[in-house]
Amino acid sequence: MSFALLFSERLRRAWQTQNSFLCVGLDPEWNRLPECITAGAIEPEAKARAVAEFSRRIVDAVQPYVCAFKPQYAFYGSLGPAGIRALEDTVRYIRARAPHALVILDAKRADIGNTSRMYAVEAFDVIGADAVTVNPYMGGDALAPFLERADRGVVVLCRTSNPGAAQLQDLWVRTDRGEARLYQVVARLVAEEWNANGNCALVVGATAPAQVAEVRAIAPDVPLLLPGIGAQGGDLAASVAAGLDSSGAGLIVNVSRAVLYASSGEQFAEAAAAAARSFTDQINSYRGVR
Amino acid sequence: MSFALLFSERLRRAWQTQNSFLCVGLDPEWNRLPECITAGAIEPEAKARAVAEFSRRIVDAVQPYVCAFKPQYAFYGSLGPAGIRALEDTVRYIRARAPHALVILDAKRADIGNTSRMYAVEAFDVIGADAVTVNPYMGGDALAPFLERADRGVVVLCRTSNPGAAQLQDLWVRTDRGEARLYQVVARLVAEEWNANGNCALVVGATAPAQVAEVRAIAPDVPLLLPGIGAQGGDLAASVAAGLDSSGAGLIVNVSRAVLYASSGEQFAEAAAAAARSFTDQINSYRGVR
Repeated sequence: MSFALLFSERLRRAWQTQNSFLCVGLDPEWNRLPECITAGAIEPEAKARAVAEFSRRIVDAVQPYVCAFKPQYAFYGSLGPAGIRALEDTVRYIRARAPHALVILDAKRADIGNTSRMYAVEAFDVIGADAVTVNPYMGGDALAPFLERADRGVVVLCRTSNPGAAQLQDLWVRTDRGEARLYQVVARLVAEEWNANGNCALVVGATAPAQVAEVRAIAPDVPLLLPGIGAQGGDLAASVAAGLDSSGAGLIVNVSRAVLYASSGEQFAEAAAAAARSFTDQINSYRGVR
Repeated sequence: MSFALLFSERLRRAWQTQNSFLCVGLDPEWNRLPECITAGAIEPEAKARAVAEFSRRIVDAVQPYVCAFKPQYAFYGSLGPAGIRALEDTVRYIRARAPHALVILDAKRADIGNTSRMYAVEAFDVIGADAVTVNPYMGGDALAPFLERADRGVVVLCRTSNPGAAQLQDLWVRTDRGEARLYQVVARLVAEEWNANGNCALVVGATAPAQVAEVRAIAPDVPLLLPGIGAQGGDLAASVAAGLDSSGAGLIVNVSRAVLYASSGEQFAEAAAAAARSFTDQINSYRGVR
């Protein structure tokens, strides 16, 4: 994975090389890990080693079927320093075993400028991710330290997949072009201001395909990261149809739990691979390729 | 510090015991640390030890003058696992040397439910903070795992102190009680829904005293965390006047850089103590006590 290329170019290569829009989210939730992985681990260091082992097994199993991995910071960070070490090890492992795949760190960062700069260092330089998710609530200057890194991706929360997302994101807002919902304002900010380096993507939950279509109309050229497929019950067919860009690409479809926990037995990795392959095949059929 | 007490009760005790509303933000920005602290440190482990040493020296120096410390996650996390260890050590050190002071972890978390639960474990159980800052953009269900911990504080971003805050937070939103700005909607959500356990606080930048007054009117009983004093140029007198609650309390006034970097010489800790004492005295004079 060369950082000499722009993020958008590396994403396009990942889509083409893998013929896949699937992103597998690495959410190693301790209580859901297979018994064969967790057995005997009690101290944080042992738990972190088990989480790293689980992550490696999943990466090996599903990497033929994905364009990206999305490790979720919280599941590693909740194990303390050893967990962060496991996260770093997981990213390095992805580089070695799946050099075609992008690493999207799911951490939903944003803070005032000098602080966001340190979060960008953490995500891109220490953990080594290709992209990081960020929260738009604090405004564009809070995202600037991420946006200015044209070799890395900045995945901006727009319309999230959780039930409470509507509480703020769906509010009607007064704009100089009439009323719009808050998530539509965020999509406009990305399309018209924040994406100057072509390195933005937008998070739009597959739980709301109508919103996927609206965001695609506002931001025709911005990749969309779609969470909510699988455990959260999102509509894959409708979301893919709504989210494709004019080139027939532009989507990163995330699945976490429905792949990671396809089986809790010793064959969990094989079950994850089968689930990942099935999701990739479904996505490809919905976009009219095999 | 006993977690048997409610967060609100512990905050009240901290205010009274210390006769101070000052919170010192621990933002150990590597390039601004005194030469006598950073000399010779190149590897992350050595840098993390230096950051921990700086944090301890600041804690010792300013603890007589503060009700709380606010360590900023990014400045520790950007040093990798060793940095997180330094953060944990710093929190333990505050417990030992300043048992009256609350620890507010500034991490601006929020995610879907099962992920936010892990962030709550990280902040409250692993790092051991009394409170954590959270971002409201994803809605109340994303904050529920924090809110349900009545022994810990949940400090919700409302109107932040950065120049770009207006971009989303000041937008006019349609509500069933007429138009309101987005940050006012957040203040209402806290006052009317999210604060059921009495453990919320709201972040309102001292860079905008008029907004401090508005939020105080919407949420009369909710403590306000005021960032933006010092390096960011906020108006301390106006913000204190605008933010006091009906009992003459209700404020946590954060200062970071103007205390931490009061001097870059070997006497940096003494200079920090003098700055902290001066801020506390100013705040007390503005609230009419000595």
